[in-house]
Amino acid sequence: MTRPVPSTTADDLHRVAGLLADTARNETLRYFREANQGLESKGTTFDPVTVADRAAEKVMREIIGRERPDDAILGEEFGETPGTSGLTWILDPIDGTRGYIAGTPTWGTLIAVNDAEGPILGVIDQPYIGERFVGGLGQAQMNGPLGPKALDSRKTAALSEAVLFTTFPEVGTTNDRAGFERVASQVKLTRYGMDCYAYALIAAGQIDLVIEAGLYPYDICAPIAVIQAAGGVVTDWAGGPAHAGGRVIAAANANVHAAALELLIRSY
Amino acid sequence: MTRPVPSTTADDLHRVAGLLADTARNETLRYFREANQGLESKGTTFDPVTVADRAAEKVMREIIGRERPDDAILGEEFGETPGTSGLTWILDPIDGTRGYIAGTPTWGTLIAVNDAEGPILGVIDQPYIGERFVGGLGQAQMNGPLGPKALDSRKTAALSEAVLFTTFPEVGTTNDRAGFERVASQVKLTRYGMDCYAYALIAAGQIDLVIEAGLYPYDICAPIAVIQAAGGVVTDWAGGPAHAGGRVIAAANANVHAAALELLIRSY
Repeated sequence: MTRPVPSTTADDLHRVAGLLADTARNETLRYFREANQGLESKGTTFDPVTVADRAAEKVMREIIGRERPDDAILGEEFGETPGTSGLTWILDPIDGTRGYIAGTPTWGTLIAVNDAEGPILGVIDQPYIGERFVGGLGQAQMNGPLGPKALDSRKTAALSEAVLFTTFPEVGTTNDRAGFERVASQVKLTRYGMDCYAYALIAAGQIDLVIEAGLYPYDICAPIAVIQAAGGVVTDWAGGPAHAGGRVIAAANANVHAAALELLIRSY
Repeated sequence: MTRPVPSTTADDLHRVAGLLADTARNETLRYFREANQGLESKGTTFDPVTVADRAAEKVMREIIGRERPDDAILGEEFGETPGTSGLTWILDPIDGTRGYIAGTPTWGTLIAVNDAEGPILGVIDQPYIGERFVGGLGQAQMNGPLGPKALDSRKTAALSEAVLFTTFPEVGTTNDRAGFERVASQVKLTRYGMDCYAYALIAAGQIDLVIEAGLYPYDICAPIAVIQAAGGVVTDWAGGPAHAGGRVIAAANANVHAAALELLIRSY
């Protein structure tokens, strides 16, 4: 999945991605756990969007506009900005807004760079813990409270030894849930509620599978790049590219991916 | 629930509790996210106990034996040690062992001091984040990545505005789950998977309810003291004392507690 990017471009993309994550942290932490988060509501379902979400995307867009003016942008809050370079920054300032407003430490800022074929660089950043996972364009690295460490996903071969995560037990539609539960019934342990942090745990070699449905591109592009760089595999439930969102399976390696996919594919 | 304890005793209990939490951190972090955690299995169900769990309880017992030799100890790993002071240290070196082995940051070290009536002091410590919640004997305080802050639980009055957490969707027995789901159907948001961290989020004023079943005393004594000090209420599902474990409801305040309890009590 690595496409040729000149090394000076790769270095610059890493530099700007780091700058974006650093700057977004100020905005997301400014409002985290404050009593009055200025919550708004998107439509009728419960989908909180915080002031922090918008503020963080705004500062990231300003930086890209200044540092990488030819690149396009797709952001969760402010939509698409066209570009001419063939590269697009995919931004989700706060993935896991429900977790954010509940004060949990498992939401994150997601930053990806896509070319025409999909993600080539991804950052999963957890500002409260001070933890960052970077993958793509020659890097597969995390840094956090215990210091820097190479990302390297698990070699677990059998589903019976696998640890599976998803954010909500209902997963998606009834059909989606049935697919998820076929896999859940085969694994060693199923856990819930980690938002994007679960994808980081695959890349960090801690868990084996994340299965979700109803995702948007900005939910999954950064995890794809980070997990692929760590040796993992991310596809949709039919085994095709996942960067458009929808139903997604992320796995620590090709074996556990294939075993889980065989159970999911009946949902199509 | 505050019983008279001489202030010199209170200060000493706080000092020793802090020492225990500091020392346990070294042991729990030594093995956290390491590939070979030396997992053992308790019986046939999946109940991982790590080397870290035992090592952390061992060092805490050594400190209590040296600093507070007349106090009793009840620990998750090594059981009961009798005492003569009327005070008992209740220790769960790693609450949320499944979360720990999955690399999540929401397990914790739980430390409580009980007198004959129940918990008088509690500590919930999350070593990886570097976050500590202390309640009882005149304190209600947290400290973490954003600095120290007073614990103060939410004043939410209506269930329809409440955020509810539990660790597993199945909660406990089928009957337990039905009780939980009666409450879940009334609240604004239900989330899963936070282990003891959810109790800390009540004390920190972030969420409103945690409902669990099948708890042991060492799972709940520290949360009781921390949440009560922050203004919250913790009982069993019949409204009685919760420090013996079993089915537990923790609430941010008396109003939301009463509203949820009315739905749970039908499970008796």
